[in-house]
Formats: sequence, structure tokens, C-alpha cells
Amino acid sequence: MEVGYHLIADLECGDSTLLKTMEEMKKIVEEAVLKGNLTKISSDYHQFQPFGVSGVVLLAESHLSFHSFPEYNLLTLDIYTCGENREERVNVAYEYIVNSLNATEIKKWVLVRG
Amino acid sequence: MEVGYHLIADLECGDSTLLKTMEEMKKIVEEAVLKGNLTKISSDYHQFQPFGVSGVVLLAESHLSFHSFPEYNLLTLDIYTCGENREERVNVAYEYIVNSLNATEIKKWVLVRG
Repeated sequence: MEVGYHLIADLECGDSTLLKTMEEMKKIVEEAVLKGNLTKISSDYHQFQPFGVSGVVLLAESHLSFHSFPEYNLLTLDIYTCGENREERVNVAYEYIVNSLNATEIKKWVLVRG
Repeated sequence: MEVGYHLIADLECGDSTLLKTMEEMKKIVEEAVLKGNLTKISSDYHQFQPFGVSGVVLLAESHLSFHSFPEYNLLTLDIYTCGENREERVNVAYEYIVNSLNATEIKKWVLVRG
């Protein structure tokens, strides 16, 4: 039974500044959730030292998660949703993050879950 | 740059009872994190009505997330870790969940992230 659309991407970002700081990453990700018309249940972010951020957003439609590696200009990102228009909504959120970080794809997978 | 080991599995579970209830799923997942020697930063779970559970665990090593679909006896699971012995630690956590739910794999992917 196909239940979800899961986009997974490893992104090389234009510069590592935004990837370093929780507040910057949080701002981008929370806006991506809004743009994608996704429904946040909760979110949590963690600032690693000396830099690097992880975050998870629990969605009514499933979840969004990311881990940044500023030392490699790298963001690893997952956006997984169930429900109506899932592919379109994931892609809107994804494009917002890609554009915000001036990112290019290193690897990308699209999985049909279930 | 390879930074993470990401195991993704869609599992058919022996019966749907455990999948229905947040408290049961939380117990299994938190124990899996311990068994895998993973480091929890935070976790959050959500009980859907009339049944079904989602959960995300933010780890120092990345994250674990799941979404249950009791109506299909289905659990969709992601365990993603960075750091030492990541493959082994993911697999220990994964096997614990599989065994706890008397589950069989419908689909499984292993992605090298980064």
C-alpha cells in the first residue's frame, strides 16, 4: 500500500554560513513547512559545537529532517509526506530550502513508501 | 564526503495492536535507541485518531523516525546515523524494532548519505 512520498537529498550549499547556526536553519525550515502547506505538530533543533545543526519537524503528514555539515558545505535533507498532493507539497518545500541555501544536488532519491 | 548511514524500511507487522498506540511505540523505539547505543537529544511522538502513531527521535548521531499505519499493519521506519560503528549501531536498533513488532520487510533501502 503506497502511503507516502519521501524525497531525500544531499545538497552542496553555496556557502556554509547558514548551515552553521541553528537560528538561521530554523528560519529556513519553518518557512519551507509553511510554503509547502505542511502541518507542523512540533519541531526541535540542536546546535552542535563548534558548528552544525540538526532538526526534525514532526508533521501531520509525516516529517522533515535535516543535518548540516558546514565543514563540507553539506546539508542532508529528508522530506516525507502522506496525504493529498504530497509530491507537489514536498517539492515546494524542497525548492524553498534549495533556493534559500543556494544549493546544488549531490545525491537525490525519491522513495514511494509503503 | 560520506557522512551517514541511512536505513529505511517499510515493515509489515505481525499484528497491528502495538502500532495503534503511542505508549507502546514509544517504549519500543526508546529501547531501540538504547540497544543501538545511540544518543538521544530529544524525542516527540504523536497519537493520531482513531489510531496510528508518528515519532521522531533527534540523535547526537542524526535521527530515527517512524510512522505507523495500523490499517495496513504497516510501519515506515528511518534510522540515520553518523559517527563510529554506524552501520552496526543502526542494525542493532533496527533488529530490536523488527523483533518487537514481529515484522517482515516489504521494502528496504540503505543509503550512504553525503
